[in-house]
Amino acid sequence: NRRTQSLHGPSPVTTFGPKACMLHNPNTIMHIQDPASQRLTWNKPPKSVLVIKKIRDAGLLQPFKELCTFLTEVKSMIVYVERKVLEDPAIAGDDAFRTTMNKFCTFRDDLDDISNYVDFIICLGGDGTLLYASSLFQESVPPVMAFHLGSLGFLTPFNFDTYQSQLNQVIEGNVSIVLRSRLRVRVQKDSREKRTKVEENGVILTNGDGEGMHKAAQYQVLNEVVVDRGPSSYLSNVDLFLDGHLITTVQGDGVIVSTPTGSTAYAVAAGASMIHPNVPAIMITPICPHSLSFRPIVVPAGVELKVMLSSEARNTAWVSFDGRKRQEICHGDSITITTSCFPVPSICFRDPVTDWFESLAQCLHWNVRKKQHHLTSEEEEF
Amino acid sequence: NRRTQSLHGPSPVTTFGPKACMLHNPNTIMHIQDPASQRLTWNKPPKSVLVIKKIRDAGLLQPFKELCTFLTEVKSMIVYVERKVLEDPAIAGDDAFRTTMNKFCTFRDDLDDISNYVDFIICLGGDGTLLYASSLFQESVPPVMAFHLGSLGFLTPFNFDTYQSQLNQVIEGNVSIVLRSRLRVRVQKDSREKRTKVEENGVILTNGDGEGMHKAAQYQVLNEVVVDRGPSSYLSNVDLFLDGHLITTVQGDGVIVSTPTGSTAYAVAAGASMIHPNVPAIMITPICPHSLSFRPIVVPAGVELKVMLSSEARNTAWVSFDGRKRQEICHGDSITITTSCFPVPSICFRDPVTDWFESLAQCLHWNVRKKQHHLTSEEEEF
Amino acid sequence: NRRTQSLHGPSPVTTFGPKACMLHNPNTIMHIQDPASQRLTWNKPPKSVLVIKKIRDAGLLQPFKELCTFLTEVKSMIVYVERKVLEDPAIAGDDAFRTTMNKFCTFRDDLDDISNYVDFIICLGGDGTLLYASSLFQESVPPVMAFHLGSLGFLTPFNFDTYQSQLNQVIEGNVSIVLRSRLRVRVQKDSREKRTKVEENGVILTNGDGEGMHKAAQYQVLNEVVVDRGPSSYLSNVDLFLDGHLITTVQGDGVIVSTPTGSTAYAVAAGASMIHPNVPAIMITPICPHSLSFRPIVVPAGVELKVMLSSEARNTAWVSFDGRKRQEICHGDSITITTSCFPVPSICFRDPVTDWFESLAQCLHWNVRKKQHHLTSEEEEF
Amino acid sequence: NRRTQSLHGPSPVTTFGPKACMLHNPNTIMHIQDPASQRLTWNKPPKSVLVIKKIRDAGLLQPFKELCTFLTEVKSMIVYVERKVLEDPAIAGDDAFRTTMNKFCTFRDDLDDISNYVDFIICLGGDGTLLYASSLFQESVPPVMAFHLGSLGFLTPFNFDTYQSQLNQVIEGNVSIVLRSRLRVRVQKDSREKRTKVEENGVILTNGDGEGMHKAAQYQVLNEVVVDRGPSSYLSNVDLFLDGHLITTVQGDGVIVSTPTGSTAYAVAAGASMIHPNVPAIMITPICPHSLSFRPIVVPAGVELKVMLSSEARNTAWVSFDGRKRQEICHGDSITITTSCFPVPSICFRDPVTDWFESLAQCLHWNVRKKQHHLTSEEEEF
Repeated sequence: NRRTQSLHGPSPVTTFGPKACMLHNPNTIMHIQDPASQRLTWNKPPKSVLVIKKIRDAGLLQPFKELCTFLTEVKSMIVYVERKVLEDPAIAGDDAFRTTMNKFCTFRDDLDDISNYVDFIICLGGDGTLLYASSLFQESVPPVMAFHLGSLGFLTPFNFDTYQSQLNQVIEGNVSIVLRSRLRVRVQKDSREKRTKVEENGVILTNGDGEGMHKAAQYQVLNEVVVDRGPSSYLSNVDLFLDGHLITTVQGDGVIVSTPTGSTAYAVAAGASMIHPNVPAIMITPICPHSLSFRPIVVPAGVELKVMLSSEARNTAWVSFDGRKRQEICHGDSITITTSCFPVPSICFRDPVTDWFESLAQCLHWNVRKKQHHLTSEEEEF
Repeated sequence: NRRTQSLHGPSPVTTFGPKACMLHNPNTIMHIQDPASQRLTWNKPPKSVLVIKKIRDAGLLQPFKELCTFLTEVKSMIVYVERKVLEDPAIAGDDAFRTTMNKFCTFRDDLDDISNYVDFIICLGGDGTLLYASSLFQESVPPVMAFHLGSLGFLTPFNFDTYQSQLNQVIEGNVSIVLRSRLRVRVQKDSREKRTKVEENGVILTNGDGEGMHKAAQYQVLNEVVVDRGPSSYLSNVDLFLDGHLITTVQGDGVIVSTPTGSTAYAVAAGASMIHPNVPAIMITPICPHSLSFRPIVVPAGVELKVMLSSEARNTAWVSFDGRKRQEICHGDSITITTSCFPVPSICFRDPVTDWFESLAQCLHWNVRKKQHHLTSEEEEF
Repeated sequence: NRRTQSLHGPSPVTTFGPKACMLHNPNTIMHIQDPASQRLTWNKPPKSVLVIKKIRDAGLLQPFKELCTFLTEVKSMIVYVERKVLEDPAIAGDDAFRTTMNKFCTFRDDLDDISNYVDFIICLGGDGTLLYASSLFQESVPPVMAFHLGSLGFLTPFNFDTYQSQLNQVIEGNVSIVLRSRLRVRVQKDSREKRTKVEENGVILTNGDGEGMHKAAQYQVLNEVVVDRGPSSYLSNVDLFLDGHLITTVQGDGVIVSTPTGSTAYAVAAGASMIHPNVPAIMITPICPHSLSFRPIVVPAGVELKVMLSSEARNTAWVSFDGRKRQEICHGDSITITTSCFPVPSICFRDPVTDWFESLAQCLHWNVRKKQHHLTSEEEEF
Repeated sequence: NRRTQSLHGPSPVTTFGPKACMLHNPNTIMHIQDPASQRLTWNKPPKSVLVIKKIRDAGLLQPFKELCTFLTEVKSMIVYVERKVLEDPAIAGDDAFRTTMNKFCTFRDDLDDISNYVDFIICLGGDGTLLYASSLFQESVPPVMAFHLGSLGFLTPFNFDTYQSQLNQVIEGNVSIVLRSRLRVRVQKDSREKRTKVEENGVILTNGDGEGMHKAAQYQVLNEVVVDRGPSSYLSNVDLFLDGHLITTVQGDGVIVSTPTGSTAYAVAAGASMIHPNVPAIMITPICPHSLSFRPIVVPAGVELKVMLSSEARNTAWVSFDGRKRQEICHGDSITITTSCFPVPSICFRDPVTDWFESLAQCLHWNVRKKQHHLTSEEEEF
């Protein structure tokens, strides 16, 4: 039964009753691979792998060394590791690991661009490792295989126990992947305010208006963009535009614009419903809104959102991207957000649906039940 | 800027880093017209129109007569009206309206199938008129133009004041439409229980297993399928399957499976986030769940859901479809739900985005604001 | 430190600045024992005990027999048991239990009034046993000691394992009790509608207006009064009055008026905050309200609430009391609700605070945590 | 009917069945005036009045001058005004106001203690004026009469239009008051960390342990104490103790401990139910908690809460009091919170119940309705 394997709706009929039909417009036709059937393959065998390890977690040292030794010595791969990871005395001082380590390629975050050298990525640790991996690749992202060492995470489906066989499967190819959409966020500073803070990690862009009046930095975000009141005790007060139209003003602690992947992160804590990562959508969730009726909304993935300080805002706001790069937003600055063309191809442990429901149960205790009855009647219950 | 006019996400890149790419599978490629550019056209000029009027609403009589006269006398259209509508003494007894009325084609709900005779539909009244229109067309649905007479509804964007010019535009074609996805719901009764209630409106199906052990009725639902405890004081206890796998058990007043269109109806009252109708998704919302952690979830449009009484359920449950056809569900019965190929093409007043945000504000008072500040400090606020 | 043992606020000062003070009104002074220090004592040694057992639960048979034998043979108590309980073949047919059983006093629910014969109550089973016990005592309620056999309930704090020593302590007296407030509910039928359904369990009252135009039934409710749409598919539409003034109209699935004890039952499923049973308050919680801004409210225990069908309601509503005695409410009928003078004295396992937080964790998994971080930054987290 | 005028529950019976009763303990009996009958009176005619005006609000200048002139010239009262208010050029430079102004007593916030000189307080502006007034009186608070100039606030029920007659009534006495409970908050710094930030406004206390190891500052809070993550991107991680026992750990953006008055301020934005100010309770509301099941709870007014950084917290937290005095909380510091003996006697416009429901509607649009029906059926609705 084909339908039960689909993760996109069926193609709807395009004729409506006896005489009506949809106006055909070839320019706006999209060709989409049903997410249920998305699988990874390799043009050439992968040779280089970036290993990302959560730092300051003693429990990860042994798995990290074991994995890297396996990759280097057994699989003859080139292992990329961030220089900071190797500065840990427990690694740098381990003589037995020295030979392996000497074969590593190291790089420095914020300085070296490795985006063209890495065939795939292995993460060891929590969901944060994947957010960090995402931040290293502002355009195309190599496939990511993420191991949780302790408890399952939304972004880290693999168990380390059988890492060798699982890795062999990935290297062979033809494994299930979920394309986690990202948000492309552009922060445009109003230079009349002479704000020229250098953005370290984001790509610096200059506006084409020939006058250099605006500086813009661009980010790829996997979970969410958060605009909040920062250290201020005041409500933030920001205007939210969709495709150029003001749709509402957010008065409260702030607002979260998230991907479906991010719906189970900060957004769910702020009261959002949880969205499967294969739904092409953007979620807008207020944080402690002043208005009782400000429920979260879900809009189609293709729209362009813009956040600006409201003209009546008495204080600035602060923006962050997957919890990083926190910066102040002043009057005139704008944050433009849309779905990115560069998703994170995240390798599934089983498949996109099973992995997600497993995470809901394990990470969020979703609908953990205890059998009990709040409504009773004398006939049957007491 | 093309992106700002899209309502589907951009086509993601399909190469991931230097060597990985998505396995090409032509069989599962879907060709989708970007919802933002979906417009109505006509193969031939429309000649017949079904007019649906909310009954027992005196305020609708005059607009109804005016509209029908215009359609019949000025536009020379064939007007279909349900027989029940004309039995209203205020219509049947109106001599001035007799001539027009005599030109109507009438039909009886549950008896006559008009689905091949109606070129488009006009609704006068509340959102219920559109739910009713949807129920008349179990397969392809003619375009619907829905007028609210009093206050704006989610499904009734048109104001009656300028109905003539608006109708002329629709008849000319090239108006914006939103394809409201429906759910195809199949109710399969376990005949061991000898339940042979005749389903009046649904299409009666016989299972192909050659034994006729199961009777199934099928429905097309625009807002939601509700499974609840009915008149019982007990919690309902139903199992929820997704693509054949048990994903959770619902203990509470019930569960709502809704389209994005339905997310702003019953689901929002039960705590769901609101989803734009162009997002290809299905929403699952528990009603007063026993578990504190049972938050609503949003799954991709293509999945197949199944609801059955849990084996430990001590009572039956009840199901209804857009608030109609309420029926009991017993042990062994199953309700299978998936996205239908037959959406309701709903003509927009402006466009899918503007209409929706207008409805959120008007119908749900979404984020109605009053300027006030809950956090204050002595420096600036008191 | 006296303050840390209080469960009522401190007595506030009654002088305000140099010259203002509260007008002294001796008629409205209340003398309240701080709930933290409420303990049970006996005027005379208790001699009779009502044992309530959940029916149709095989796991309770052995504990029930053991307990009754202990009470009858060892403690020489008179045991009251509902006749229906003894009709269970597993009890009636147990010859070994015959001698003990022959000493029981039996009664029939709805027919025999045992309220003056029972010195205390023992419940075996779920929270429903306590709701049932409450329904048997429309005025003063003997102390209740409630055992859960499987998992802890909000109303059943005692573990059966050491029942003998615990029972001895209770019989000695000086154990901690929580007075669970009840609601006194009066249902007044508008007799113009000639509705003369006999209320079996409630006390039948005749209005003093000399005309017998109204029939009223009165109930004592431990958890909640629910007014809902019953089997109807329509929204219920009821007016809510507080001390005679219309405060709001409820449009939705219904409304729950609950005690603090009931706040952790149906109300919490409908979205309410949870209130400790020692807070003198009444909670009003809408069920799936049509309005996004209809948040639950908590009002002081002393107010009088009234619920009536709204004049614009097109359908009747249904009312139930702790999930029982479900009945229809028509135009003109009224439901009057206030805090009762007759609480349920519920014997604590430890003390009112510890027992409650234990139940929140065990029954509702309140704030079950998994250590994880949704906000991360590159410096420390990945 | 006495009951309908009560705002405390009725005194419960203290005998339970034929033989049980509550152990009498005269030491813990409290004598409470029913809140419904609390009225203001004067020992001596009031002679001095503190006028608090929201600054930087041009619309308040004229009412302020008019009011002060009336108080000074007509009522011969001594008017206290904060010096900062008179520094506004629009006041200082107004020659016509000079004579009146010269009769004012001025004081400086943080330097002068006027708590023994003020017979009552008048607030002009928003709810912030009342929070500020509260902060000036760490012990007994004179009665407060609060005018809203624009839209009604929860704490500012009076309309300025008829201020003279209303003021005359207050001065005569016998007006309805609501005693708004406050929280007494003590912040104890662990001096091993050598943190000796001087607390300007709070009363500085030295611990009686003879060693001066701890410094404590005490605050009276009318709305809420907030402990949050401050400018950090990390979740806060704090332990919550009740009467010395750890009841839960808060992982999320923070936690709000509020009075019933504060339940309609920040707490409601974070999802709390709304509590009438006459309910003796303390509300605990998590802010964006990491756990789906962390619902707000309401505990009795008399308990003592303590908040400390969890031992596993990797970052500090921040605390603020009614949005003021924001300060960092480090490992070892503790925040102890209980209901204060010094409420704010807030003069009612009508009465405690009417004023509150009026505010719910005006300030929070509570259950603003639009007549519409989400459930429909073909028989009656379309």
